Amino acid sequence: MMKLYYSPGSCALASHIALLDAGAPHEAVRVSFKDEEQKKPDYIKINPKARVPSLVTDNGILTETPAILAYIAQTHPDKKLAPLNDAFGFAEVQAFNSYLCATVHVAHAHGRRGTRWADDEGAIAAMKRKVPQTMADCFALIEQTMIKGPWVTGDSYTICDPYLYTMSTWLKGDEVDIAKFPRVNAHFAAMNERPSVREALRVQA
Amino acid sequence: MMKLYYSPGSCALASHIALLDAGAPHEAVRVSFKDEEQKKPDYIKINPKARVPSLVTDNGILTETPAILAYIAQTHPDKKLAPLNDAFGFAEVQAFNSYLCATVHVAHAHGRRGTRWADDEGAIAAMKRKVPQTMADCFALIEQTMIKGPWVTGDSYTICDPYLYTMSTWLKGDEVDIAKFPRVNAHFAAMNERPSVREALRVQA
Repeated sequence: MMKLYYSPGSCALASHIALLDAGAPHEAVRVSFKDEEQKKPDYIKINPKARVPSLVTDNGILTETPAILAYIAQTHPDKKLAPLNDAFGFAEVQAFNSYLCATVHVAHAHGRRGTRWADDEGAIAAMKRKVPQTMADCFALIEQTMIKGPWVTGDSYTICDPYLYTMSTWLKGDEVDIAKFPRVNAHFAAMNERPSVREALRVQA
Repeated sequence: MMKLYYSPGSCALASHIALLDAGAPHEAVRVSFKDEEQKKPDYIKINPKARVPSLVTDNGILTETPAILAYIAQTHPDKKLAPLNDAFGFAEVQAFNSYLCATVHVAHAHGRRGTRWADDEGAIAAMKRKVPQTMADCFALIEQTMIKGPWVTGDSYTICDPYLYTMSTWLKGDEVDIAKFPRVNAHFAAMNERPSVREALRVQA
């Protein structure tokens, strides 16, 4: 049985939802960031990057949300969580998830993990101040140029959807009004109705 | 024929090398960041994110390096640029490339694109100061826990290799001594001998 290491409120929610979407037997293991468990030797053995998610599989350990999501889709082809037989469609899914990982998540992280990129307090405060703008800019681009609706890639639910949903859950804390992005807002509401989302939130609560 | 939009010195070098590795017919189109061509309407139609790389294919346009690299590997299976029939191996490749995209590239970008994440000059200068440390930390982790040698995943050259090489070309400008990372340094030297690397550098010069 796979083990997913997660921290509540983190991007690991996307992988958790996808495991439930796939019907993949798994155990969800909480890592307390408050207690800095992600930096302790036992966890560093699992993930030397000291981050979540980590997915322990029979073959070895995977990290990085886009890679874990694609792995779940590829190992559960009957669930059709990505266009597996269409290299271009698959690349579009990967491109969307890569944007979330490298741009949207990074924008959000400047609000709470500024110490990654600067040491002085004034700089960290300046990064924090800009988060509402950068996150709003990211979601404007998603709204206008990426999300097709009702799901990210159109009529088919894919591994893009739990990842976008996860980022959407961060908007309120980042002082961005999701209602300004009607497609994203409708996507968020539709996701909240899915049993996989409800179950992941229940487990992580 | 595919078109790759690139800017010299950018991460688009990875996709350029991979296209040459794959023997994929393509045209490399230069986008001048100095002239801010990436923000002009003609380019925004191609890539609304105003970034490179963009790969124009017969099926549509792809962005984001990890997605483009995987697309090149999947559409040229005879070149064996990724373990395409091994979901776990493929996910490991994606995980490595995702780390480069979302952590290493982001660390580097704080040295020259700090305005993305803060508005005041002091903060931007503070970010710039930390780049040598963050890039060195990233490469220490790559050296100690990721690169197997001689190539990233071991004996097989994959789409991880041109991407790591591209990041390695940034180290000098980021004031990091590549010689401190023997495996990365050997990888960099081996890449410099490859015809695909030489050709991409020649075209982009």
